Amino acid sequence: MPYDYIPPLLNINNGKIILLILDGLGGLPMTLGGETELEAANTPNMDKLAAEGSLGQTIPIRTGITPGSGPAHLSLFGYDPLKYDVGRGVLSASGVGLTVRPGDIAARGNFCTLDEEGNITDRRAGRIGHEEAKPIVEKLKSLKISGVEVEIAHVKEYRFTIVMRGDGLSDKISDTDPQKTGVPPLHVKAENMESEKAAALFQEWVDKTREVLKNEEQANGLTLRGFATNPELPTYLDSYGLKAACVAVYPMYRGVSHLVGMDVIQFQGEKPEDEFETVAKYWNDYDFFFVHIKKTDSMGEDGNFDGKVKIIESVDQALPILLDLNPAALLITGDHSTPAKMKAHSWHPVPFLLSSPEYALTDSQTIFGERACALGGLGTFPATETMSLALAHAGRLSKFGA
Amino acid sequence: MPYDYIPPLLNINNGKIILLILDGLGGLPMTLGGETELEAANTPNMDKLAAEGSLGQTIPIRTGITPGSGPAHLSLFGYDPLKYDVGRGVLSASGVGLTVRPGDIAARGNFCTLDEEGNITDRRAGRIGHEEAKPIVEKLKSLKISGVEVEIAHVKEYRFTIVMRGDGLSDKISDTDPQKTGVPPLHVKAENMESEKAAALFQEWVDKTREVLKNEEQANGLTLRGFATNPELPTYLDSYGLKAACVAVYPMYRGVSHLVGMDVIQFQGEKPEDEFETVAKYWNDYDFFFVHIKKTDSMGEDGNFDGKVKIIESVDQALPILLDLNPAALLITGDHSTPAKMKAHSWHPVPFLLSSPEYALTDSQTIFGERACALGGLGTFPATETMSLALAHAGRLSKFGA
Repeated sequence: MPYDYIPPLLNINNGKIILLILDGLGGLPMTLGGETELEAANTPNMDKLAAEGSLGQTIPIRTGITPGSGPAHLSLFGYDPLKYDVGRGVLSASGVGLTVRPGDIAARGNFCTLDEEGNITDRRAGRIGHEEAKPIVEKLKSLKISGVEVEIAHVKEYRFTIVMRGDGLSDKISDTDPQKTGVPPLHVKAENMESEKAAALFQEWVDKTREVLKNEEQANGLTLRGFATNPELPTYLDSYGLKAACVAVYPMYRGVSHLVGMDVIQFQGEKPEDEFETVAKYWNDYDFFFVHIKKTDSMGEDGNFDGKVKIIESVDQALPILLDLNPAALLITGDHSTPAKMKAHSWHPVPFLLSSPEYALTDSQTIFGERACALGGLGTFPATETMSLALAHAGRLSKFGA
Repeated sequence: MPYDYIPPLLNINNGKIILLILDGLGGLPMTLGGETELEAANTPNMDKLAAEGSLGQTIPIRTGITPGSGPAHLSLFGYDPLKYDVGRGVLSASGVGLTVRPGDIAARGNFCTLDEEGNITDRRAGRIGHEEAKPIVEKLKSLKISGVEVEIAHVKEYRFTIVMRGDGLSDKISDTDPQKTGVPPLHVKAENMESEKAAALFQEWVDKTREVLKNEEQANGLTLRGFATNPELPTYLDSYGLKAACVAVYPMYRGVSHLVGMDVIQFQGEKPEDEFETVAKYWNDYDFFFVHIKKTDSMGEDGNFDGKVKIIESVDQALPILLDLNPAALLITGDHSTPAKMKAHSWHPVPFLLSSPEYALTDSQTIFGERACALGGLGTFPATETMSLALAHAGRLSKFGA
């Protein structure tokens, strides 16, 4: 359980919670003295919520640490990624929509270039692009291994993900990437007796890929790493007493939500209003909605300051759809910062807005932005405390002690 | 390793870091409604950095805890003093410039007054002054113990430090200070078999001191406590990937820096500009510079508010020497507060300034002072997170997780 003290305090209650994540929300001014993306955006709805509610800023993982999307979301869900070790293979598989059940083994794959002796000359196969890699992955899908089911999916460039499903598999398997060139890929090696079966089956798969890849110019070999199974995280129902739903467009976020036991809702459309209408449609079926907006992060990664501003504004414009539902607690934040200035994720604290008409302690801030959040009433706190705030403001936590 | 998650994330990078410590920087107004020393000081350079960078305030050890100089610096370096036990003897020896290598045993010594039966009548030898104690320490230096090397140095008043160096010594030895009067000093006692040799040798030394001290009026006895060896802390290079240098005038700070593997740079002069010019001279040889200004603390301890203000101003005036080097990250803070009003170290949060032209998230504060720092964008955080902030803003940490 992420917080052992929470389950004994849980109330039966109808208070509904929306956690609205604008991926990579936090930003930086492009030039000294300027505004951040969120500060520059015209967000009348969020500003009203900010004026009536409480602001703060979160540390996603630890001070100074730039998170990947998987760990950043685990943090928001209350599962400290330094304590809950979700293997890279599982996150990667979740990221491309492959299901990893307990006992399934997922791994990350890289195409590489081998010379005539079978030694690696390029660990990333010349960084081949999407168009070249995708058909190769398609060919690999046809390979069968007796006794187990194998799923693979392209990730991007030279990267793919593989999941093996069957009885008696263990993930204590060493990476086959030797982390250098001039040597062949390592054999798939079991780290203990229980994993020998899985190691042999993965090696069998690798051996079979040789025939498929042999005529490729750049991607004529591959390596596997990050073997991992579903870590069976405590569920949202057990941890927080919440029947929880995920409304997200991208597979990565659906995958991580699924790992903590959320129902992943299927819906049409990609716009904020499509996602918000989905929440409205399922409003009576769930206690908690995780709603994920991807494009703030994508624009940040592209260095597109104005594009990120526009996405934030489009979310703000659609926000009344959620507000009309009268959630007991609406939390609006990011999983991390993705400043357009840096074209990358960053470690900076993330703006956080808590709206709870019944219970929020209104602070002195009146707009939603980085500088306002730094002065907000919630202070600076670990992202892992998000769920405690949500539960409390939804009236779902009873008193600790007499 | 202070932070296990940092070494796997370390980037090779040229971003240089300066950690400028004004010892005892934090202060208090002398009267209600007044300014602190830092607020009263005219610091145009630091104020400009504050306006462009991020402010915050650190908790040196734990809330409400007043730190000594050794633990306070270990904290700033990222080594939580509640986890990394650097024995008092080692800190004391470092403080007076004695080297304690792994296997050497250091201890703190007190002169005391004994009556004719050998019972302690004053555990601090009437708090004899520097002038009386120093020649006694000189006499003790002549004592030889066969098979080991012994170094001793005066600390202040009735206090001195001793280091024993030789093969097969262990520091599991009990204090000889009985913590009360009317009884004789305790024997040097081994706490386990490995430390019997060291205990016997220290007792031999104590026995030999009797002859030297017998005619002293007040300091005719002594006690030893805090036996400790070099704890072999993880180095800056291993912990943070940094080639680190210490620029400090006082032995204590050089000693603590040396314990974490910094190179201690020798230089002439004691003024801020002498220290800053030393940084400039060695700029290309190191990734990280710890620069220590002592006199802010000394003035605070003396209750000299105006003197402390002047020292802060002299640091500010010399600051352009550091700014001209264009460090990727410049952090200016104290190890703790030493309010002139209290004439002592205190537990108050310590003002913290982070300058990083490329990456700092500018907050809403425009001057460097206690009240501004309490409203700064970095919030209130443990001093042990200083190095994570420094590494991140120098571009030296890659992403955690995919």
